[in-house]
Amino acid sequence: MSVLEGKVLVAQGGGPTAVINQSMVGAVLESRKFPQVTRVYGALHGVRGVVEEDFLDLTEATTHNLEAVANTPSSGLLSTRDKPDVEYCQKIFKVCQAHNVRYFFYIGGNDSADTCRIVNEESDKAGYELRVIHIPKTIDNDLKVTDHCPGYGSAAKFVAQAFAGINLDNRAIPGVYIGVVMGRHAGFLTAAAVLDKKYPDDGPHLVYVPERPFTKEQFLRDVKRAYDHYGRCIIAVSEGIQDANGNAVAAQFTGGEKDAHGNVQLSGTGALGDLLSTWVKSELNIKRVRADTLGYLQRSFLGCVSEVDQYEAREVGEKAAQYAIWHNLDGSVAIRRIGDYAVEYFLAPLKDVAREATSMSDAFLNAEGNYVTEEFVKYAKPLIGKLPVMERIAAPRVAKAGE
Amino acid sequence: MSVLEGKVLVAQGGGPTAVINQSMVGAVLESRKFPQVTRVYGALHGVRGVVEEDFLDLTEATTHNLEAVANTPSSGLLSTRDKPDVEYCQKIFKVCQAHNVRYFFYIGGNDSADTCRIVNEESDKAGYELRVIHIPKTIDNDLKVTDHCPGYGSAAKFVAQAFAGINLDNRAIPGVYIGVVMGRHAGFLTAAAVLDKKYPDDGPHLVYVPERPFTKEQFLRDVKRAYDHYGRCIIAVSEGIQDANGNAVAAQFTGGEKDAHGNVQLSGTGALGDLLSTWVKSELNIKRVRADTLGYLQRSFLGCVSEVDQYEAREVGEKAAQYAIWHNLDGSVAIRRIGDYAVEYFLAPLKDVAREATSMSDAFLNAEGNYVTEEFVKYAKPLIGKLPVMERIAAPRVAKAGE
Repeated sequence: MSVLEGKVLVAQGGGPTAVINQSMVGAVLESRKFPQVTRVYGALHGVRGVVEEDFLDLTEATTHNLEAVANTPSSGLLSTRDKPDVEYCQKIFKVCQAHNVRYFFYIGGNDSADTCRIVNEESDKAGYELRVIHIPKTIDNDLKVTDHCPGYGSAAKFVAQAFAGINLDNRAIPGVYIGVVMGRHAGFLTAAAVLDKKYPDDGPHLVYVPERPFTKEQFLRDVKRAYDHYGRCIIAVSEGIQDANGNAVAAQFTGGEKDAHGNVQLSGTGALGDLLSTWVKSELNIKRVRADTLGYLQRSFLGCVSEVDQYEAREVGEKAAQYAIWHNLDGSVAIRRIGDYAVEYFLAPLKDVAREATSMSDAFLNAEGNYVTEEFVKYAKPLIGKLPVMERIAAPRVAKAGE
Repeated sequence: MSVLEGKVLVAQGGGPTAVINQSMVGAVLESRKFPQVTRVYGALHGVRGVVEEDFLDLTEATTHNLEAVANTPSSGLLSTRDKPDVEYCQKIFKVCQAHNVRYFFYIGGNDSADTCRIVNEESDKAGYELRVIHIPKTIDNDLKVTDHCPGYGSAAKFVAQAFAGINLDNRAIPGVYIGVVMGRHAGFLTAAAVLDKKYPDDGPHLVYVPERPFTKEQFLRDVKRAYDHYGRCIIAVSEGIQDANGNAVAAQFTGGEKDAHGNVQLSGTGALGDLLSTWVKSELNIKRVRADTLGYLQRSFLGCVSEVDQYEAREVGEKAAQYAIWHNLDGSVAIRRIGDYAVEYFLAPLKDVAREATSMSDAFLNAEGNYVTEEFVKYAKPLIGKLPVMERIAAPRVAKAGE
């Protein structure tokens, strides 16, 4: 066991998820059990709250309150898009030093893992003992090492339920439907659109992700074929689809606004959906074409949580406290699949998870680049948990009056 | 009791809802109890399926299957946008005559009520005894006579949960968020965005509906004031907002596509959200502005049903069969509120519900035309049923190290 006596500091970074508070509360409640933990602080607005010393004392939050927060989507400690450099990270560990923080848990994606890595290195250099654990979260499922990321399952469930409903709607009043799903470089969330298909003709019939080059020609050919076959067509498309040169198809229509990380804004606009919709209307001469951009609902809709995702998010938070305080280790908590469906947790080196993200493997995408494989469905289905009832009428046709 | 021996015919028209199948199944199962009902048919694709004699024999559907269908969103019998004229309605009753249909139940909005009215008149003129009952459904809540419409509660719950999640997300990473909600002439669904606000600073902070003239000047003034006050701003806006001359603000950006009823397409495009977003960015110089159009998810998302809406939709279906077969009556099933919260059902004349729709009363909207009143909240809250847990962290602030 670590004999480091001092405080625990928890923070949440990047885009919220439906279960990020489970991880936070898991880390907090587990940390509160250890006698060498003098206090458990939560930083408001992620690392920004650390450098500004904007802390809540979570040792004095009630268990009921924390459990209610755990079941609340989005970052209860609020978040930040700040991406710290070395100087910023030095400030972080200096604040930790000033408050005798000895355990720092940061819940986030690959950028947050990188922050953990730098803070860990800088505190080592300064000779200040600080255990740093990165707790994984992302709806994009694009972290390296881990089998999958907490946060993905619930967002994937939202997308699956959205497209299952859209499919029922589109059967009732047929046409072409384009649903634009979050995902800048990784198509995992878009691919989840297929996870609640039940009958062979259910949509989505086409899936386009950033991992495969997108061309207008193939898209229109695919839509025409599906529409001719089914009398309707549902398409799931990632906001980050790219042409053969790696340029985002959406980029030219968003006015080029860039976020703090220098990325072009893809979410929070209907431009890509409307563009694809216009192509289908004008070039395929199909009249009823509708495009929705699923937008921020994917990561924050109240009341759509995968129970699997929920307990895994809780557990990675608990494991963070255990690795740091029982074992005196630094690293990134990761998930290994050991059964169908069963997982175990392990600690990966921070440098292996930091910075670079991953995307869908070739085995998850078909050769034509317009749909997923059975292997993807097998991978992703256990992560979204139980789905609502959905059934078609089973009744015989009636003969016409003259027959 | 009606002594008319013959068949029951059920059909579903217009846009699907989350609970329209409850009404259908309620009517079918209740009808199957009467000995004078020889068969219960379901027409596929609404009135189009009637004139084309495209029928399923629901007498031979199992109860388990029908109950599962009742719990499935969207129209299980599929739908149509056809709006029958007199000639079309003559065809409907002639098909009814050919099949000895004596009870026709049509689930839909005001256009469907009008179809019921004409079919009823034409069959009367022809001396063919046909009981016709309109069963109300619409997510827009814009039917006359009834206190509210089945279908609205579940769509309102979706909108309330969407904005509750958006509010949590927007607290974590502040900015301006614009959510465009369905509603061409009635703002009920947009107004539902406020129904899951818990803390005083929760969004949405502004609500714009078609019942009040929308001006760019007021909109920007309102957004600036809210943003200055809260450091963020969430806006719920109806797709059908109009300028002082009654022109849809969205109309000029959709290429003018019109549906079968001659209405300009408002849904299935992100144009209105993007327009408002551009105004806020350019004129208020606020950087992080996001717009989502909630789109078709509002009426078809799998797994978001108000339990109140669910049983009321079931009951209006059952009552349709009872009014027609026990009492030999024609009309439109309506809901009267008799307690907080309790309702009773009654039968309104078809002509009172047919054709013209209604919209939000003045008492539901504030004087400035940018928000709802407490009276609206009191009216709508019981309709959306139970909401998920949502709580903020309650913990003391920590003093800074130097303090």
